[in-house]
Amino acid sequence: MNQTILARFKIIDGKESEADEAMKTMAAAVEKSESGALTYIFARNRKDPSEVTVFEIYSDDDTFKAHGASPHMGTFRSYFGPIFDAATVKVERLEQIAGFQR
Amino acid sequence: MNQTILARFKIIDGKESEADEAMKTMAAAVEKSESGALTYIFARNRKDPSEVTVFEIYSDDDTFKAHGASPHMGTFRSYFGPIFDAATVKVERLEQIAGFQR
Repeated sequence: MNQTILARFKIIDGKESEADEAMKTMAAAVEKSESGALTYIFARNRKDPSEVTVFEIYSDDDTFKAHGASPHMGTFRSYFGPIFDAATVKVERLEQIAGFQR
Repeated sequence: MNQTILARFKIIDGKESEADEAMKTMAAAVEKSESGALTYIFARNRKDPSEVTVFEIYSDDDTFKAHGASPHMGTFRSYFGPIFDAATVKVERLEQIAGFQR
Protein backbone atom coordinates (compact mmCIF):
# COMPACT_ATOMS: atom_id res chain seq x y z
CA MET A 1 0.00 0.00 0.00
CA ASN A 2 1.41 3.39 -0.85
CA GLN A 3 2.45 5.72 1.91
CA THR A 4 1.44 9.36 1.68
CA ILE A 5 3.05 11.87 4.01
CA LEU A 6 2.40 15.51 4.75
CA ALA A 7 5.25 17.14 6.68
CA ARG A 8 5.26 20.75 7.83
CA PHE A 9 7.83 22.95 9.56
CA LYS A 10 9.17 26.50 9.60
CA ILE A 11 12.32 28.10 8.29
CA ILE A 12 14.29 30.05 10.88
CA ASP A 13 14.22 33.80 10.15
CA GLY A 14 17.07 34.84 7.90
CA LYS A 15 17.80 31.27 6.75
CA GLU A 16 15.55 31.35 3.69
CA SER A 17 18.25 30.93 1.04
CA GLU A 18 20.02 28.14 2.96
CA ALA A 19 16.62 26.50 3.37
CA ASP A 20 15.86 26.61 -0.37
CA GLU A 21 19.31 25.20 -1.11
CA ALA A 22 18.84 22.40 1.45
CA MET A 23 15.43 21.49 -0.03
CA LYS A 24 16.79 21.44 -3.59
CA THR A 25 19.73 19.23 -2.61
CA MET A 26 17.47 16.88 -0.64
CA ALA A 27 14.87 16.57 -3.42
CA ALA A 28 17.62 15.82 -5.97
CA ALA A 29 19.06 13.09 -3.72
CA VAL A 30 15.64 11.50 -3.20
CA GLU A 31 14.92 11.58 -6.94
CA LYS A 32 18.28 10.02 -7.78
CA SER A 33 18.52 7.33 -5.12
CA GLU A 34 14.96 6.40 -4.08
CA SER A 35 13.10 4.81 -6.96
CA GLY A 36 10.19 4.05 -4.60
CA ALA A 37 9.62 7.74 -3.92
CA LEU A 38 6.90 8.56 -6.43
CA THR A 39 6.21 12.15 -5.41
CA TYR A 40 8.39 14.42 -3.33
CA ILE A 41 7.57 18.12 -3.35
CA PHE A 42 8.88 20.91 -1.15
CA ALA A 43 6.76 24.06 -1.15
CA ARG A 44 6.54 27.30 0.79
CA ASN A 45 3.32 29.05 1.75
CA ARG A 46 2.83 32.13 -0.44
CA LYS A 47 1.35 34.15 2.42
CA ASP A 48 3.91 33.08 5.02
CA PRO A 49 7.01 31.87 3.12
CA SER A 50 8.58 30.62 6.37
CA GLU A 51 6.07 27.73 6.33
CA VAL A 52 7.35 24.66 4.49
CA THR A 53 5.11 21.85 3.28
CA VAL A 54 6.49 18.54 2.03
CA PHE A 55 4.11 16.26 0.16
CA GLU A 56 5.49 12.75 -0.27
CA ILE A 57 4.22 9.51 -1.79
CA TYR A 58 6.13 6.23 -1.44
CA SER A 59 5.23 3.05 -3.28
CA ASP A 60 5.02 1.07 -0.03
CA ASP A 61 6.01 1.05 3.63
CA ASP A 62 9.50 -0.38 2.95
CA THR A 63 10.43 2.45 0.59
CA PHE A 64 9.12 4.93 3.17
CA LYS A 65 11.31 3.33 5.86
CA ALA A 66 14.32 3.36 3.51
CA HIS A 67 13.73 7.08 3.00
CA GLY A 68 13.91 7.69 6.75
CA ALA A 69 17.14 5.67 7.02
CA SER A 70 18.91 7.22 4.02
CA PRO A 71 22.16 9.18 4.38
CA HIS A 72 20.62 12.27 2.71
CA MET A 73 17.78 12.15 5.27
CA GLY A 74 20.45 12.14 7.98
CA THR A 75 22.01 15.23 6.45
CA PHE A 76 18.63 16.91 6.08
CA ARG A 77 17.74 16.17 9.71
CA SER A 78 20.91 17.95 10.80
CA TYR A 79 19.40 21.19 9.43
CA PHE A 80 16.68 21.13 12.11
CA GLY A 81 18.20 23.59 14.50
CA PRO A 82 20.43 25.71 12.24
CA ILE A 83 18.04 26.23 9.28
CA PHE A 84 14.62 24.80 10.17
CA ASP A 85 12.80 25.17 13.49
CA ALA A 86 12.66 21.67 15.01
CA ALA A 87 9.88 22.71 17.41
CA THR A 88 7.49 23.32 14.50
CA VAL A 89 7.74 19.91 12.82
CA LYS A 90 4.46 18.11 12.20
CA VAL A 91 4.37 14.89 10.20
CA GLU A 92 1.08 13.30 9.22
CA ARG A 93 0.53 9.94 7.59
CA LEU A 94 -2.34 10.12 5.15
CA GLU A 95 -4.56 7.61 3.43
CA GLN A 96 -5.39 8.44 -0.18
CA ILE A 97 -9.12 8.32 -0.86
CA ALA A 98 -9.29 9.49 -4.47
CA GLY A 99 -7.43 11.44 -7.09
CA PHE A 100 -4.69 11.25 -9.69
CA GLN A 101 -1.37 12.60 -10.90
CA ARG A 102 -0.46 13.07 -14.57
CA MET B 1 3.57 29.40 -13.38
CA ASN B 2 1.99 26.35 -11.84
CA GLN B 3 -0.42 26.74 -8.94
CA THR B 4 -0.06 24.43 -5.97
CA ILE B 5 -2.83 24.30 -3.40
CA LEU B 6 -3.16 22.63 -0.02
CA ALA B 7 -6.75 22.55 1.22
CA ARG B 8 -7.84 21.11 4.54
CA PHE B 9 -11.19 20.56 6.20
CA LYS B 10 -13.07 18.09 8.40
CA ILE B 11 -15.74 15.53 7.73
CA ILE B 12 -18.84 15.87 9.89
CA ASP B 13 -19.17 12.94 12.33
CA GLY B 14 -21.13 10.10 10.82
CA LYS B 15 -20.75 11.39 7.25
CA GLU B 16 -17.57 9.43 6.43
CA SER B 17 -19.01 7.24 3.69
CA GLU B 18 -20.83 10.14 2.00
CA ALA B 19 -17.56 12.09 2.23
CA ASP B 20 -15.52 9.36 0.54
CA GLU B 21 -18.16 9.09 -2.18
CA ALA B 22 -18.17 12.88 -2.72
CA MET B 23 -14.36 12.95 -2.96
CA LYS B 24 -14.29 10.07 -5.45
CA THR B 25 -16.94 11.69 -7.65
CA MET B 26 -15.17 15.06 -7.49
CA ALA B 27 -11.73 13.64 -8.30
CA ALA B 28 -13.16 11.71 -11.27
CA ALA B 29 -14.82 14.89 -12.62
CA VAL B 30 -11.60 16.89 -12.27
CA GLU B 31 -9.60 14.15 -13.99
CA LYS B 32 -12.07 13.93 -16.86
CA SER B 33 -12.78 17.59 -17.51
CA GLU B 34 -9.76 19.60 -16.32
CA SER B 35 -6.72 18.78 -18.42
CA GLY B 36 -4.79 21.55 -16.62
CA ALA B 37 -5.18 19.81 -13.27
CA LEU B 38 -1.91 17.87 -13.05
CA THR B 39 -2.31 16.48 -9.54
CA TYR B 40 -5.46 16.22 -7.49
CA ILE B 41 -5.36 13.99 -4.43
CA PHE B 42 -7.86 13.64 -1.60
CA ALA B 43 -6.49 12.01 1.54
CA ARG B 44 -7.58 11.43 5.14
CA ASN B 45 -5.29 11.62 8.15
CA ARG B 46 -4.59 8.09 9.43
CA LYS B 47 -4.64 9.21 13.08
CA ASP B 48 -7.74 11.39 12.75
CA PRO B 49 -9.66 10.19 9.67
CA SER B 50 -12.06 13.13 9.93
CA GLU B 51 -9.26 15.40 8.67
CA VAL B 52 -9.20 15.75 4.89
CA THR B 53 -6.22 17.03 2.94
CA VAL B 54 -6.43 17.96 -0.74
CA PHE B 55 -3.16 18.42 -2.61
CA GLU B 56 -3.65 20.10 -5.99
CA ILE B 57 -1.35 21.23 -8.78
CA TYR B 58 -2.63 23.25 -11.76
CA SER B 59 -0.56 24.06 -14.83
CA ASP B 60 -1.22 27.80 -14.45
CA ASP B 61 -3.47 30.38 -12.83
CA ASP B 62 -6.14 30.15 -15.55
CA THR B 63 -6.63 26.42 -15.06
CA PHE B 64 -6.83 27.01 -11.29
CA LYS B 65 -9.52 29.65 -11.83
CA ALA B 66 -11.41 27.34 -14.20
CA HIS B 67 -11.36 24.68 -11.47
CA GLY B 68 -13.00 27.09 -9.02
CA ALA B 69 -15.68 27.99 -11.55
CA SER B 70 -16.47 24.44 -12.70
CA PRO B 71 -19.93 22.89 -12.22
CA HIS B 72 -18.46 19.95 -10.24
CA MET B 73 -16.78 22.45 -7.89
CA GLY B 74 -20.21 24.03 -7.39
CA THR B 75 -21.63 20.63 -6.49
CA PHE B 76 -18.70 19.87 -4.19
CA ARG B 77 -19.10 23.24 -2.43
CA SER B 78 -22.72 22.35 -1.66
CA TYR B 79 -21.41 19.54 0.59
CA PHE B 80 -19.88 22.06 3.00
CA GLY B 81 -22.59 22.02 5.60
CA PRO B 82 -24.18 18.58 5.14
CA ILE B 83 -20.99 16.46 4.78
CA PHE B 84 -17.94 18.63 5.43
CA ASP B 85 -17.57 21.20 8.22
CA ALA B 86 -17.39 24.60 6.48
CA ALA B 87 -15.91 26.23 9.60
CA THR B 88 -12.76 24.08 9.34
CA VAL B 89 -11.77 24.94 5.75
CA LYS B 90 -8.23 26.22 5.26
CA VAL B 91 -6.85 26.78 1.78
CA GLU B 92 -3.20 27.66 1.26
CA ARG B 93 -1.50 28.66 -1.97
CA LEU B 94 1.98 27.22 -2.12
CA GLU B 95 5.09 27.94 -4.14
CA GLN B 96 7.02 24.85 -5.18
CA ILE B 97 10.70 25.07 -4.28
CA ALA B 98 11.98 21.65 -5.31
CA GLY B 99 10.88 18.10 -6.01
CA PHE B 100 9.37 15.78 -8.56
CA GLN B 101 6.55 13.42 -9.43
CA ARG B 102 6.97 10.21 -11.42
